[in-house]
Order: sequence, then structure tokens, then C-alpha cells
Amino acid sequence: MKGILYGVSVGPGDPELMTLKAVRTIEHCEAVAAPETRGEKTLALDIARGAADLSGKEVFSVGFPMTRDPKALAANYDAVASQIVQRLEAGKSVAMINLGDVSIYSTFSYVAERVAAQGYEVEIVPGVPSFCAVAAKLGTPLTQRDEPLHVLPASFEDLDAALALRGTKVIMKTGKSLQKTLEAIERAGAIEHTSMVQNCGLANERVCKTVSAADTSSDYFTTILVKEK
Amino acid sequence: MKGILYGVSVGPGDPELMTLKAVRTIEHCEAVAAPETRGEKTLALDIARGAADLSGKEVFSVGFPMTRDPKALAANYDAVASQIVQRLEAGKSVAMINLGDVSIYSTFSYVAERVAAQGYEVEIVPGVPSFCAVAAKLGTPLTQRDEPLHVLPASFEDLDAALALRGTKVIMKTGKSLQKTLEAIERAGAIEHTSMVQNCGLANERVCKTVSAADTSSDYFTTILVKEK
Repeated sequence: MKGILYGVSVGPGDPELMTLKAVRTIEHCEAVAAPETRGEKTLALDIARGAADLSGKEVFSVGFPMTRDPKALAANYDAVASQIVQRLEAGKSVAMINLGDVSIYSTFSYVAERVAAQGYEVEIVPGVPSFCAVAAKLGTPLTQRDEPLHVLPASFEDLDAALALRGTKVIMKTGKSLQKTLEAIERAGAIEHTSMVQNCGLANERVCKTVSAADTSSDYFTTILVKEK
Repeated sequence: MKGILYGVSVGPGDPELMTLKAVRTIEHCEAVAAPETRGEKTLALDIARGAADLSGKEVFSVGFPMTRDPKALAANYDAVASQIVQRLEAGKSVAMINLGDVSIYSTFSYVAERVAAQGYEVEIVPGVPSFCAVAAKLGTPLTQRDEPLHVLPASFEDLDAALALRGTKVIMKTGKSLQKTLEAIERAGAIEHTSMVQNCGLANERVCKTVSAADTSSDYFTTILVKEK
């Protein structure tokens, strides 16, 4: 019997925001693949440990370099897939844990398509995305009535056009580009409708119900919420 | 001691997609407010019962008529808020349970602002939105690289313009407007990149990896995913 690869969402930070299914799936697997990146360190593993019992499991790191070079990225996904396939072939099921929800800006899909192409079963456990936790923390709805919601990465090339769209805008993982992002929001005349949470659910959480365009704090886990005027 | 109102997200359908915090919060409260609507019936309550122990709690229905008349809606929110305030004033904490995530197209915020205005504490427990569960079920990521994600209600007035945006489009709760929505997707030339899940995580779930513009099935809980060409 070959193992199954599970892409398990562990939520944005607070271990209590893991789902019952995420905890059960991790505890069911013989091995846990813990992504390690420069920005996120071993945060997903810390969250998982906060709610699931990992004793007796093989926990192994999978590294994702912060590069944009397609060749280097593809080689890295191949290497991670082969680390996982090794375990699946030995009959171990693997839970690859992911911050927030697996479907939103995670690296899991690149690894999963390679593992699936080699004939292994892949299953996904959805979770709480950071922007839902951020809205809860701010006590504000993301969408009301017929409003659309636009989720944008901070690296999005045409932020000015996106900020002009109707509805609520969520800008994720601003990190070093916080100032550039806040400047775009000010250009759009929306700075008074903007709020922000850094490190949501973590010890160093910072909740800003209002935001100044001069804010120079930079944190990888910054989520910005821009409501409609 | 006055009670606290908790807006608790119970996820899209499968009780196992409730978070640990949602289960703990519901079990902590003396009373549970269960929304009852024409489209959703008592689904949120059925989900909550599937994972949380409600024995000994006061479970009361809060009705939301399916009207768009602002006066009727406001009067209804006032009435629901007063049902809740009655319990809070008696020292009972109330968990108002909500499908999916509380921050996305839920009625909770209208009730919560009224309860908060009367001086009571309100806290929100985020959850798994239906579109994350739908993506997991389809085995497809919602966003990759720098792609934006646009979440739209089926009632959105300018669906054609929204479908022309870059990135992934999620169209929620299409229900009776399924045909109109699929026609708009076909006009946008995107029907081959469209998939759909009806009643995600429920007994009558229907997963459609491909979609025909002629599909006339109508179900309140239909989530459509349109990927970029």
C-alpha cells in the first residue's frame, strides 16, 4: 500500500484556528513535511505542534528558496516532490502543512502536481485564510450585500488599477513593499478606509484599525484591508 | 456579568471543517442563536451539532427573511439583536453560528453592530470559507504566483466586467441565477476554464470539474470557479 499526500492547511497563526480535520489528518500521517522558507521560517510546524500530537512521527523539512527564477523553482519543486515520494513509496502517508489555506498563494500545488503525475493520491484539507482571521480581529466584515472581494498579492503589478475596483481589497504578505503599497492606497484616496494586521494570531501581533501612509514597519505577515469609500 | 456575543463560523458543510476554536466557543456559551433562512434552512445548526456538544444549551432560531427591502431588513436585524441582547443581559453568552466564514456575505455584521451599539462585547471566530473547501475538493489552487482572486456574489450587477479581470474568479451562491451566470461565463470565453461544486461537503454534493453552459440544475449552494485563460 502506497501512502497518500495530504496538503493540510493549518490556518494563519493561532493553533486553535486549525480545523478538526487538519488535526486528525496530521495525527493520521506517519510523516509531516514542514516547509521552511526565509520569510515564514518553521511557522507552520509551530502552529501544527500547538494542536496536534506529533510524537512518533517523522518530521522533515522541505526548503523553498525565495527566488523568482523559473528554472531554480522547478528544480526545487522536483526535489521536494521526490523527498515526499520516497516516503509515499515506503507506505507512509505524508501531511505537508501550509500556513493559512492551501489554495491561496501556497507552494503546495506545484509539489502536488508532480507527486500526482507519478501516480500517487493527493488530498487537500482546506483551512482558515489569513484575511478571514484579520477581518475577525478587526471586527469588520470583508463583504456585505453585493460587494465583491479582491485578494491581491503585494507584488501585484497593477495595484493602482486593482485599488480602483468596486468592493473590498485585501493585500497579502506586503512585507518589504509596505511603504510602496501604502503610497498606492493614498494615491487611490483610500487611506482613511484602510486597516491592517501584522502577525495575526502570533505573539507579536499588531492590530491597526487606522493606518498612516508614513508607516515604515515591515513585516512579512502584514495583511492590509481596504474598504470601499 | 453581562454575556458576550460570539459570531462563530462553522465552515461550509462538513462538521470536521469547524475549527477547534469554533467548537470550544460554542461549548462555552450558554445559548446558541441558529439562523434560519429559506435558502439555508437550519444548515449551520446541523453542522455545529456534528462536532459540538449542545446538550443543556438554549438553542434559539433567528429568522432572516429573504427580502431586499431596506426597511424590512433593518426591522429584522433590530428584532434579532434584541433577541440576543435579552440573553446577554441575563448573563448568558451567545454563539451566533454562521455558514462558511462570518466575514464573507453573512448577516452577522448587521446584528453585531446593533448589539455592540447597546454596549455589549462582540467577538468573531473566523472559519473556512466555502470557496476554499471547493478548491480543495476540485484539487485546484485558487491563486498562484501573482494572480489576484476575485470573489463575487452571483447577484453582482456587472458580472461581465468582473469576468474580464485578470486572475481567478469565484462566484458564490448562484442558486437560481446559475443559467444567467453560465451564459456570462460563456460570453467571456471562459467556460472551458470553469468548474463548480454544489453543496460542498454535504450528502448531496456534486463536483463538476467541467461545466456546460446548458446546465440547468439550480442549487442555492453552488460555487463556481473561473480560472484565467
